[in-house]
Amino acid sequence: MLLLKIDGASNVPAYRQICDRIVALVDEGALRPGDRLPPTRALGASIGLHRSTVVRAYDELRALGYLESRGGSYSTVRRRQRPPSTRRDPTARKDDSLIDWSAVTRPSIRALHTHTAMEPIKSATPGDVIDLDRLSADPTLAPDDDLRRCIKSVLVRIGGAALDYTDAAGWRPLREVIAARMCNHGVAVSSDEILITGGAQQALDLVLRYLTRAGDRVVVEAPTYGMDHALLKLHEVDPIELPLLDDGMDLDRLQRVLQRGRRRPKFVFTMPNFHNPTGITTDQQHRERLMALCEKHRVPLVEDGVEEEMKYFGQAVLPIKSMDSKGIVLYVGTFSKVVFPGQRIGWIAAPSEAIVRMTDIKHASCIAGNTLAQAAAALFCNSGEFESYLRRIHRVYRRRMQALLQGLERHMPDGVTWTRPSGGYTAWVTLKDIEMTESELLERIMREGVKVGPGNRYFAGRPATTHFRLSIACVAEERIEIGCRLLGRALARALE
Amino acid sequence: MLLLKIDGASNVPAYRQICDRIVALVDEGALRPGDRLPPTRALGASIGLHRSTVVRAYDELRALGYLESRGGSYSTVRRRQRPPSTRRDPTARKDDSLIDWSAVTRPSIRALHTHTAMEPIKSATPGDVIDLDRLSADPTLAPDDDLRRCIKSVLVRIGGAALDYTDAAGWRPLREVIAARMCNHGVAVSSDEILITGGAQQALDLVLRYLTRAGDRVVVEAPTYGMDHALLKLHEVDPIELPLLDDGMDLDRLQRVLQRGRRRPKFVFTMPNFHNPTGITTDQQHRERLMALCEKHRVPLVEDGVEEEMKYFGQAVLPIKSMDSKGIVLYVGTFSKVVFPGQRIGWIAAPSEAIVRMTDIKHASCIAGNTLAQAAAALFCNSGEFESYLRRIHRVYRRRMQALLQGLERHMPDGVTWTRPSGGYTAWVTLKDIEMTESELLERIMREGVKVGPGNRYFAGRPATTHFRLSIACVAEERIEIGCRLLGRALARALE
Repeated sequence: MLLLKIDGASNVPAYRQICDRIVALVDEGALRPGDRLPPTRALGASIGLHRSTVVRAYDELRALGYLESRGGSYSTVRRRQRPPSTRRDPTARKDDSLIDWSAVTRPSIRALHTHTAMEPIKSATPGDVIDLDRLSADPTLAPDDDLRRCIKSVLVRIGGAALDYTDAAGWRPLREVIAARMCNHGVAVSSDEILITGGAQQALDLVLRYLTRAGDRVVVEAPTYGMDHALLKLHEVDPIELPLLDDGMDLDRLQRVLQRGRRRPKFVFTMPNFHNPTGITTDQQHRERLMALCEKHRVPLVEDGVEEEMKYFGQAVLPIKSMDSKGIVLYVGTFSKVVFPGQRIGWIAAPSEAIVRMTDIKHASCIAGNTLAQAAAALFCNSGEFESYLRRIHRVYRRRMQALLQGLERHMPDGVTWTRPSGGYTAWVTLKDIEMTESELLERIMREGVKVGPGNRYFAGRPATTHFRLSIACVAEERIEIGCRLLGRALARALE
Repeated sequence: MLLLKIDGASNVPAYRQICDRIVALVDEGALRPGDRLPPTRALGASIGLHRSTVVRAYDELRALGYLESRGGSYSTVRRRQRPPSTRRDPTARKDDSLIDWSAVTRPSIRALHTHTAMEPIKSATPGDVIDLDRLSADPTLAPDDDLRRCIKSVLVRIGGAALDYTDAAGWRPLREVIAARMCNHGVAVSSDEILITGGAQQALDLVLRYLTRAGDRVVVEAPTYGMDHALLKLHEVDPIELPLLDDGMDLDRLQRVLQRGRRRPKFVFTMPNFHNPTGITTDQQHRERLMALCEKHRVPLVEDGVEEEMKYFGQAVLPIKSMDSKGIVLYVGTFSKVVFPGQRIGWIAAPSEAIVRMTDIKHASCIAGNTLAQAAAALFCNSGEFESYLRRIHRVYRRRMQALLQGLERHMPDGVTWTRPSGGYTAWVTLKDIEMTESELLERIMREGVKVGPGNRYFAGRPATTHFRLSIACVAEERIEIGCRLLGRALARALE
C-alpha cells in the first residue's frame, strides 16, 4: 500500500503534495515502471482527502509522464523515456548527435566559417604589435561619457518606451535626425526615406534579401570590402568583379556588363568615398557617368557611404545619392565606422517604396532594432555632441593619415606603390613583382612587428597582384611612423 | 577676366578660396558651361599666387565636376549633370523613379506587407477599448529602474567595451547566464551551446537560413504564431500545417508526413509550453513521442520556448530540449515576452556545431548584436533582479489568467469553447456554428469595445472554423472581467 503523508497545514495544495511525493518515490526507485497505483477513491479515503483531489494529482502526473492509464480503470507508473539531467555527462561525446550539424546546411553556409574575406572583429593582436589591420573607430577616442549621459537622459525622459518595441523602420526621431544629416551631405530625403538598421551589415543584408535570390549576380568593385563577400556567399549571389582603376570602378567594363542581355546584375555596388580597402575617392565625372549607366539600364545602384564623415583633405565630393533625381540609388550609412560600433546603428536612404519593402523584410526577420540605442543616438546627434566629436577625431585622423602617407613616402622601397586617400582609414599597397606568396609576405611583415590586412580578403577570386591594406583606425600617430619604417624594412628584404 | 579676391590673412587655404569662389560663380550663373578659365600661370600672376596653388584648385574643381580640361591646354566650366539640391522639390512625384521598387522584388516579399499573419507591434487601440489582442510583456509592470541601474553600472564597470563590438555569438557572460538558466529548466547546456540573437524572431530567421532554402518544407502546428508565417513567406518555405489537437500537434499525421520519402520537411516546429495562440501545454508523453518520431527520422526539432518562464498553475513540464540526448533539438528562447522587448534579446540553445554555423550566418548578416543591451541583461539576471521580477509578474499574471478563465466561464454563451491554459498569456476561443465572416465577427466585438486577435492570422491557409485569440498580457485584472462580459454579449448576439 502506498504511504503518503499530507500536511494539511502546509501552503502547498494537497494535490501538489501527492504529486511531489509520488514523483519522489519514482525517482528513488521505490515505485517502478509498471507498478499499479491505488484507485483514486481508495487513496483519497486512506489519506483523508476527497477523491477529486487525487484525480487532479493523477492528471498532473500523467501530464508529466509519470503515470499512464491502463484500460481506464487504474493507473500505473510509466517508463519515462529519458529522465532529464541538469548535469552534463562528461563522458558524452559531442558527435553523439543523430544529425550531422555541419553537413545539414548548404555548402554556401559551410564556406562562411573558413572564408578569409571575413574580417575579424577583434584581433588578438599583442600590444607590442603595430596593428595596421583593425578597422573600427578607435575606442580610445570614443566619447563614452557623452553617450552615457544621453542614455541616462533618454531613460529618464522617455522612460519605459525606450525599453519597449520601436517601429521596424526605426525610432522616428532618429530617422529624422539622419534625414537631416543626409541633407547636409546634399541628399534631399525625408524621414520616410530612411530605414534604421543594425549597422551597415544588416543594411546590405536587407538590400540583398530585397533585390536578389540564389543564383543572381551583382556588380562589385575588385577589391571591395571583405565582409561583402561573406554576405554574397550567404545569399548565394555571384559577384561580377570589376577592377578598380586609379579613378574608380572600370566603367567601360561596367557598360559592357550592363549591355549584355543575359544574367543582368541585380544591382551595382560601389563605395565612391574613401573606398575600403583602397581609400580611393571617385571624382564627380566618374560618379555622373556611373549613375548615367545605371539609369540607362535601370539597374539599382547601391552606394556604400559608411565612411562619408571621414574627409580630411580637400573639398568633399557629394554622395552619388545627392544627384539621384530618378530614384535609383539605395544609400547605406552607419555610425559604426565613426563611433560606438557596439550600438549597431546604420541606415538605408532610398525611395520610400523601397524603404517600405525592406521594412517589411526587417519586421519579418527581427521585428525591430534596439529602441534605447536608437533613442540615445538621436539625442547624441541632436545635442551637438556628435559634431564636436567629429571635429575632434577629424583632427586626429588627419594627422594619422598624414603620418601614414609621409611614412610610406619615406620608407617604402622601389617596386612598391600605394594609394593617397583624402579621407577614411585605409590605404592600399601594391607589390607588382614579388616572388613569395601573400601569406609568406604577411608573415615576414608580422615578424617585424606589424599587422596588415591581407589583400586576398577583398577579392572573391585570387588577385593577380600582391596587395595589402593599411588601416590607421586604431594606431596612434607616432606608432604609424614606426610601423611604416618596420614595414619598409620587411618589404625591402622581401623584394631583394 | 576672372575676378578673384584672395584673403591672405584667412585660415582658409588660398587654393580652397579659389575653389569656393569659382564654385560660387558657377552656381550664380556668372560662369557658364563652356566658359574658358584663365591659364593657371596667368591667374596665379593676377592674384599674386604661385601657379601651383591655382593648379591644385583646378584639380579639386575637376574632381568636383566643375571644370574639365580641353585638349590639356586650358580648362572650361563643365555642365554638371544634376546640381544636387538639399531641398526636396514639392512638385516631384514619387513615381518619377526609373525603377518600380514595388515590383523589383519577388512575390514572396511583396506579400509580406499585406500578410495578415503579421502581428502589429503597436496597436493604435484607443484607451477605452479593452485590448485582448496585444501580446507583449506589460510595460506598466516592467522594472525600468532596475534595468537603468544595470545599464549605468555596466557603463561604469565595463566602460568603452560595452559600446564596442561584441562577439557574433554574444557577450560571453550573458551566454553563461542563459546556459545556467536553461539548466534550471532541466536543459544541460554549456555557454558554447548558446547563441545570443536579436529576440526570438532573429533566432527563427537564423534557423531558417541555416536549415532551409526556397522551396523547402517545414512542419508547423496549425494554428501557430503568426509572425512565423511571414518569416516562412520571406524564406519561400512552405509550411506543412498539422492540426493542433487538444493535447498538441497531431502526431499520427506527423508520422505519416515523416514516413513519406519525398519533400521531407527540413524541421518540425513546435511550441510545447503555453502555445501561442492556443495556450495549450503538451504533456510528457506527447513530448516523448514527438521527439522519438524526430529522432527516428533524423529531422531537427525546433522548440519554441519563448514563454517558458510564464507557468502559473500546476507543475512545470520540462522543455523537450531537456531530454535531447541525441542532439536533435534547437531551442529558441527570449526575454522579450517577459521583459524589455525593445532590448531585443533572445537565444538559441543547440548542439555546438549548429551554434557555430548559425554564428557564422549571424556574423555575415549583421556582425553582432548590441553589446550594452547584452551586458545589461547579464547583470540584470546575475543581480537577482530578474528572479524577483518574475515572482512579481507571476502573481499578477496568475490572477489575470484566473480572471480570464472565470470570466469566460461566466459570460460565454452556448456554442463557444475555449482552452484553459496553465501559463503564458493567451487563450483560444472557437465558434463552431457561426454564420458570419471572421472580420464581421471581430467588428461586432470591437463595437462592444473589445479587441481580440483574428484567428486567421495564425494559419497559412484559411481555417475551417472561426477562432480568435485572447491575450491577457497588457490588460489589468478588473478590465479582463469586464472584457469577458462585453465579449459574451457580442458573441451571444452573433450566435442568435
